[in-house]
Order: sequence, then C-alpha cells, then structure tokens
Amino acid sequence: MEDLATDVVLAMTAQAPDGIVIVDPEGLIRYWNRGAERIFGYAAAEAIGRNLDVIIPEKHRQRHWDGFVAAMAAGASKYGDNDLLAVPALTASGGIVSIEFSVVLLSGPDGTPGYIGAVIRDVTARRAQEKEIRQRLLAATPTPATP
Amino acid sequence: MEDLATDVVLAMTAQAPDGIVIVDPEGLIRYWNRGAERIFGYAAAEAIGRNLDVIIPEKHRQRHWDGFVAAMAAGASKYGDNDLLAVPALTASGGIVSIEFSVVLLSGPDGTPGYIGAVIRDVTARRAQEKEIRQRLLAATPTPATP
Repeated sequence: MEDLATDVVLAMTAQAPDGIVIVDPEGLIRYWNRGAERIFGYAAAEAIGRNLDVIIPEKHRQRHWDGFVAAMAAGASKYGDNDLLAVPALTASGGIVSIEFSVVLLSGPDGTPGYIGAVIRDVTARRAQEKEIRQRLLAATPTPATP
Repeated sequence: MEDLATDVVLAMTAQAPDGIVIVDPEGLIRYWNRGAERIFGYAAAEAIGRNLDVIIPEKHRQRHWDGFVAAMAAGASKYGDNDLLAVPALTASGGIVSIEFSVVLLSGPDGTPGYIGAVIRDVTARRAQEKEIRQRLLAATPTPATP
C-alpha cells in the first residue's frame, strides 16, 4: 500500500478538533492548529510568535517554565506517554478552561535544541460533572460524629 | 516569524503519545502514529492497510460503519468539534481498552473521497476510577424502601 500523502497528514494535524501546539526552545508558540484556535479563542495568526504565557494562568507560570527548562536540558520530559497533565488555562476572552494534555519532546536535527509539542483536550465540561458527583458523594456520606 | 518546518509538524504527529489515525474511504488504516502503536499494541507496519475492524469489537462494528458511510456520503461527520466519542476498543494482545476520540473528515482534493482522521486517548484508567466512584455513591445513597 502506497504511503499516505504528506498533505493529508498535515491536514489532519491542522484540522484536528483537539489542540495541537508546538513551542520552540524559547517558549514561543510556533504551531497552533484549528483545535487550539477553538479551545483558546486565538487565531493561529494571533498566537504564533507569542510566548506560551498567553494561555498560562500567572500562578502556574513558574512551575510550567521550570518543567519546560528541565525537559529541554535533559532532552526528555519527565512525563511519560501515559501521563496526562491537567491544568487550567486562559482563553482569549478572559475565561478559564480545564485542559488535559500529553507532551512530546521533539529532537532537533544534529543535537540542536528541539521543540515541545502538546496534544490538548478541553475537559471543562467533564470537570464540572466530576465536581457535581464529588459533592453528591460528600452529601450522601454520613459525617462521623465528632467527640 | 518564519514558518515552522514541515518536518517538525510531521514529527509531532508521528510521535504524539495520543493516537492519531487516518482511515481511507474504504475503511482501511492509512496512518498510525506512535500513540496508536502504544494504545493498541500494533506496530504501524502491522496496522497500515488493514481494515479498522482490527480494533473495533464485533458488536460495535455495524454502528461504526453506518456512521462512517453516512459521514463520507454527507461530506461531514455528525459529530462536532466538542463531541468526544467514547467506546471500547480491541488491542493486539486481545485486551479491551476504553478510548475517547475526536474525529475530523478530511476533504480530498477536487471532490475526491476524503479521509477520516481521529485523535484517540486511552482513558481506561479513568473509566475504572469513575466506576469505583459510582459504586461508592450507590453504596452511600440510602435505598428507598420498597412498598
């Protein structure tokens, strides 16, 4: 079977409903697909070239960039293939969404610094449901009497 | 800012921990990334060219292909960008995984039949947790007395 045309793979990546984002070693957004446009509300033309901080809530930035720098230095992310990272993220309209994402470190050719890519799913609706279920569970569980 | 090299985008898609799969109009697997290898246990060389039935449990096949044919005929999937499809899937070792996936219909050039792509996340661990929480909730909720 002949190989699938590169154009089809690129169209898949560009049009996927999930966010697919690539950041360069300086932390600048270099790729931003249709799913990322949908989740975060920034068009690719607005997002590309900007620092990823545009979607990271301020109190999460230090932790994010510490992990980013460590991954770049080590040439590997501490997160494995089975790890989903769950964080809140900022949208263009000033809102907050809950996202889950997987990360992959892309080696540059000839040992040049690589890129970090992420596949991002908006899980805001599920998080709201989970919260509701936890509250029902708490309400249904008898509180132990305090002595 | 210069465009990101196509090679980097292709590497991102190939190496993503999430499954990225493209199926042709005949239902044959044409693209199968590293994430799909990991989730389903088939190497790309084993999966490409095979019918997608290889990962669809028998009792789900009719429904799957009805939706597939309808999407191809309509030139659009009935599932929107916000819809995640949740189904069980078969693995190479004979196991079952729970997956959630988004779909995108890729238009072929000049009205030729397109391809259907999916971004697939293995949610088996989360499903097990959800089941446990539901059972705790049931156990904690007083059963109404039957008359």
